Amino acid sequence: MALSLTFPDGSVKSFDDGASALDVAKSISISLGKKALAGKLNGKLVDLDAPIKADGKIEIVTKDSKDGLAVLRHTAAFVLADALNQLFPGLRFGEGTATEDGFFYDTDKDDGQVAVTDLPAIKSKMQEIIKAGGQIESASMSAADAKKRYANDKFKSQLADEAGDPISGHKLGDFFDFNEGALLPDLKELKHFDLLSVAGAYWESKSSNPMLQRVYGTAYFKAADLEDDAKRRQEAKERDHRVIGRDLDLFFVDPEVGAGMPYWMPNGATIRRTIERYIVDREVADGYEHVYTPVAANLNLYKTSGHWQHYREDMFPPMDMGEGEMLELRPMNCPSHIQIYKHHTRSYRDLPLRIAELGMMHRYEKSGALSGLQRVREMTLNDGHTFVALDQVESEFQKILKLILSVYKDFDINDVTYRLSYRDPANTDKYFDDDEMWDRSQHMLKAAMDDLGLDYYEAEGEAAFYGPKLDIQTKTALGNEETMSTIQLDFMLPDRFDLTYVGKDGEDHRPVMIHRGVVGTMERFVAYLTEIYKGAFPTWLAPTQVVMIPVKNDLHEDYVNNLKDQMVKAGLRVKVDDRNEKMGYKIREAQTKKVPYTVVVGDDELASGNVSVRRYGEDKAWEQSAPMFINAVKADVANYSRKDARQ
Amino acid sequence: MALSLTFPDGSVKSFDDGASALDVAKSISISLGKKALAGKLNGKLVDLDAPIKADGKIEIVTKDSKDGLAVLRHTAAFVLADALNQLFPGLRFGEGTATEDGFFYDTDKDDGQVAVTDLPAIKSKMQEIIKAGGQIESASMSAADAKKRYANDKFKSQLADEAGDPISGHKLGDFFDFNEGALLPDLKELKHFDLLSVAGAYWESKSSNPMLQRVYGTAYFKAADLEDDAKRRQEAKERDHRVIGRDLDLFFVDPEVGAGMPYWMPNGATIRRTIERYIVDREVADGYEHVYTPVAANLNLYKTSGHWQHYREDMFPPMDMGEGEMLELRPMNCPSHIQIYKHHTRSYRDLPLRIAELGMMHRYEKSGALSGLQRVREMTLNDGHTFVALDQVESEFQKILKLILSVYKDFDINDVTYRLSYRDPANTDKYFDDDEMWDRSQHMLKAAMDDLGLDYYEAEGEAAFYGPKLDIQTKTALGNEETMSTIQLDFMLPDRFDLTYVGKDGEDHRPVMIHRGVVGTMERFVAYLTEIYKGAFPTWLAPTQVVMIPVKNDLHEDYVNNLKDQMVKAGLRVKVDDRNEKMGYKIREAQTKKVPYTVVVGDDELASGNVSVRRYGEDKAWEQSAPMFINAVKADVANYSRKDARQ
Repeated sequence: MALSLTFPDGSVKSFDDGASALDVAKSISISLGKKALAGKLNGKLVDLDAPIKADGKIEIVTKDSKDGLAVLRHTAAFVLADALNQLFPGLRFGEGTATEDGFFYDTDKDDGQVAVTDLPAIKSKMQEIIKAGGQIESASMSAADAKKRYANDKFKSQLADEAGDPISGHKLGDFFDFNEGALLPDLKELKHFDLLSVAGAYWESKSSNPMLQRVYGTAYFKAADLEDDAKRRQEAKERDHRVIGRDLDLFFVDPEVGAGMPYWMPNGATIRRTIERYIVDREVADGYEHVYTPVAANLNLYKTSGHWQHYREDMFPPMDMGEGEMLELRPMNCPSHIQIYKHHTRSYRDLPLRIAELGMMHRYEKSGALSGLQRVREMTLNDGHTFVALDQVESEFQKILKLILSVYKDFDINDVTYRLSYRDPANTDKYFDDDEMWDRSQHMLKAAMDDLGLDYYEAEGEAAFYGPKLDIQTKTALGNEETMSTIQLDFMLPDRFDLTYVGKDGEDHRPVMIHRGVVGTMERFVAYLTEIYKGAFPTWLAPTQVVMIPVKNDLHEDYVNNLKDQMVKAGLRVKVDDRNEKMGYKIREAQTKKVPYTVVVGDDELASGNVSVRRYGEDKAWEQSAPMFINAVKADVANYSRKDARQ
Repeated sequence: MALSLTFPDGSVKSFDDGASALDVAKSISISLGKKALAGKLNGKLVDLDAPIKADGKIEIVTKDSKDGLAVLRHTAAFVLADALNQLFPGLRFGEGTATEDGFFYDTDKDDGQVAVTDLPAIKSKMQEIIKAGGQIESASMSAADAKKRYANDKFKSQLADEAGDPISGHKLGDFFDFNEGALLPDLKELKHFDLLSVAGAYWESKSSNPMLQRVYGTAYFKAADLEDDAKRRQEAKERDHRVIGRDLDLFFVDPEVGAGMPYWMPNGATIRRTIERYIVDREVADGYEHVYTPVAANLNLYKTSGHWQHYREDMFPPMDMGEGEMLELRPMNCPSHIQIYKHHTRSYRDLPLRIAELGMMHRYEKSGALSGLQRVREMTLNDGHTFVALDQVESEFQKILKLILSVYKDFDINDVTYRLSYRDPANTDKYFDDDEMWDRSQHMLKAAMDDLGLDYYEAEGEAAFYGPKLDIQTKTALGNEETMSTIQLDFMLPDRFDLTYVGKDGEDHRPVMIHRGVVGTMERFVAYLTEIYKGAFPTWLAPTQVVMIPVKNDLHEDYVNNLKDQMVKAGLRVKVDDRNEKMGYKIREAQTKKVPYTVVVGDDELASGNVSVRRYGEDKAWEQSAPMFINAVKADVANYSRKDARQ
């Protein structure tokens, strides 16, 4: 029987029954035969030499494709398991596989777990295995054999039970492991790999299950790619807000006390409070009326808004308060601000009505998705809702956008992208039904963006059900894209809550609601700032702005404390380091803590009335009169993070 | 058989069987016989002429006792029911009785309820009944008769069912009502009474039951007492933060959206935000480290703290988050601040460690107990916890108390009482077991109070289980005593959470924890301030500080807006009233809204560069140069509410 295979370009070819991906590759060209690493049959990776048993779509996988990297890393995971098995007799194994950016294998041991200190030895063993140059072959094992072989490994036994009979896998010399997909035919391609870390991982990702030790690694075909990756990892680590957050004592999360519920330590709290006051003041100056509304409400409110019907899986479980009241922690602040709107009869003279709040919300995220301040379950959003007449949409949108851009300038935020999302013109029936509102408002949004001369891209079909929107996107140190700021039009909620205003004509009209966030949640924004500043917060945000070090406590401390009092009165955050430590140690620590100004005072300064100042990140210290220094720090604070205003 | 009755002074006398309280009174003196209104047998009020059927303790009730007032008001409730019955055929009746400060009767009607507009007619009818001069007599009714009589009144039928057979009560002419206790023998004592209000009240106080209309009244023996009461009520109404809160648009609570969950409107939110920033700044200047901690935590935290075991009925129901996590909205912030303490190893050099937060908490109060901002279910406490070594208790206690007194001065708070609570020396085993800690700390607290020269009273046996405390008490407009500030020592939580610090000796020691609140919860504090200021908030707190009125919009508005911009830049909250209304109307409205400064600008002011200023509560306006006026308002803001700093 002949095999009929379809190529990516749509052409169809016949092959002898039992032909392998290698045969197929060779039939196309000799060079492809040499480059081929595996086949991809109907979307599934298959070993290069495995006989193809049925018709289907075929692709040849080479080094140059993403699939090639997956095959390489899958092979690395296999070799890792072989090495672990040789080094640690009696080791139990969980899952192991290739990932987006590397590979891993889970392990468990009775007497002390595999640790990061074992990684060099494991890597050597892997290199030894590769050097020996054996051939990985497709292989299989009967369920009965697996039962015997994994008798002392409850995890692997369970995986074997789930894998059918016989269990297909691969072997290299004596070592067999069951797994799906393709491995490299030739181990010599596995040259540029590294083992990176060991971290706990729950068996089957369930926190009620035992915790295994996951060994992480990565692999590339080229040495340069591996080096680039190492650089990227180092950079990400230096930027990672979780690492900096610990080093600078900004916050912590303890899953035992509450998964995804951050505790802001005094340093982080100072940064957050400074941002909160800044943004509230900016908004008040911009015509917003700030309110406080409760973090929980009767579940009926979220039935009226539709959140309960459409968003329930992201919400916390309701609380039964008795007397028929089900109370729900709010997932969003909009229904609360609608209560503020509805509390009075509104007229066209009241519009635009701008309601804002530092609104705390609770969203249920799976525990595995939680991460530092970036992914949390309790968050406080710099939230605002503007209620406008339809013909005010353009000017209000532009006003909000101008506020956002001005705030970005103050925080020195530049690396963002603008995405304007419209409804899908081919599927208008999937959206809130008001063609005029959609058409006019989409035009108004675009006109406002053009007017401001911003680079943006338009995404048809990306609008919410209830209206078009602008999202301003950023990237985290870990490479995830996040929405920082957003301006969303909403035609639906005013309808669901029957919001009205009395127009000039004396009749009731329906307002448009604009949801907007300027700096997003305090949690995510502080995480973002920590990453872009690499923890070196600009003076106005720094938890400690000035550290003062007397050269000799007994001689210089009075002078230093007097200066400190002057600065504290001027509203600055100043610490005196009068510990019995060496001066060099104190200066280095101030640098480690990334304090903007380190000031040293000794005999010379006492005599001259000067201070010796060192700016964070600069090599040289300079002398300055004390009053001039205080004024300079005050000016620095007043300049926010703006580079254009730097001295 | 002879009756043996014991008098309040312990003496015992014999009376003929069937003697009444009146007979007993007469046996003591003729004048007491005349003054007697009822008897009190074994603590229960009995009619004056009712035969006493068993031995017991007897008291004679006269006008001069609290019980006399209860009998009077109980009689008033009876006469009210008689009047209502005559005026509204087919009216259904719920409960009716005397209360602490008056009386009420609940009613229900098919066709339009009894309303406040009916009160004059009802009062007239009551006066008519009293004038007719009938005699109230003890009476009873069989259950069968009651069933017939109240066939069309489901509430009274139910009460009759619950009252036994026969049902005892009273009658006056044709009118019978069943009730317990005593009524006046002679209606002519019921002269000085008034009907006050009508308000909804749930049948059996359950919100799932129908709502009846409760008619409220009060009664006194003397006209002057009734007048005083009316004055007090008027005063309380003028002070009532719920009334002022509505008039000045400070906040609202909507039980449909969340019982006890206040929404702060922009005006109230401005006051709250100003207070929050003020108190945080004061605390930071005083060495506190402000933090943000989550409003919910794993229930286990509150099991460790003991709140769940001892305080559960005041807590919200836990939420099941899956993966074995029960999450609980915190009833108090102390366990959260303990997490902050525990996050690092602490040494004696870190003490006193002062952790503070505007900490949101949730407490379950019965819906009937909720009231405006005073009794709520969600509240934000100006909370703080200081961790000290035992020998630092006195100085830290005094430091906290000085902060409180200084803050009181800024808010012009004077009418408070200080209560120092100790453990009961006769029952020391009821308290946390550490005699040295108790003895030393109680002495230190007292010494600190004496040192500051404060008037205080000592309450033995009023301490918490876990330590002695100082409470600073205030009174609400409704006359309830509330704790505004508190300083509580706690020996227990450090023990339950195994808190330690490394002492100079290198050993672990247990710190003492001091719970302290300076201004209490934002909700209760703003309610309190609203009441003491009667809504006329001092300039620094006033939502709008200055209202500017151009005499003619077209001629004077530019000048006014320019002045406004200058003031806004100076951080002031200013509104321009350029509506097309008469100037007198605008000025009156600014007074109604209790805005500190009303400024009028016309031709004269434009020419001279002056403004015409009217201070809230003062009769006369004055002329002042614009820059001087702005400086004066700024100085006023900087002076807080302090009278000693008033210009």
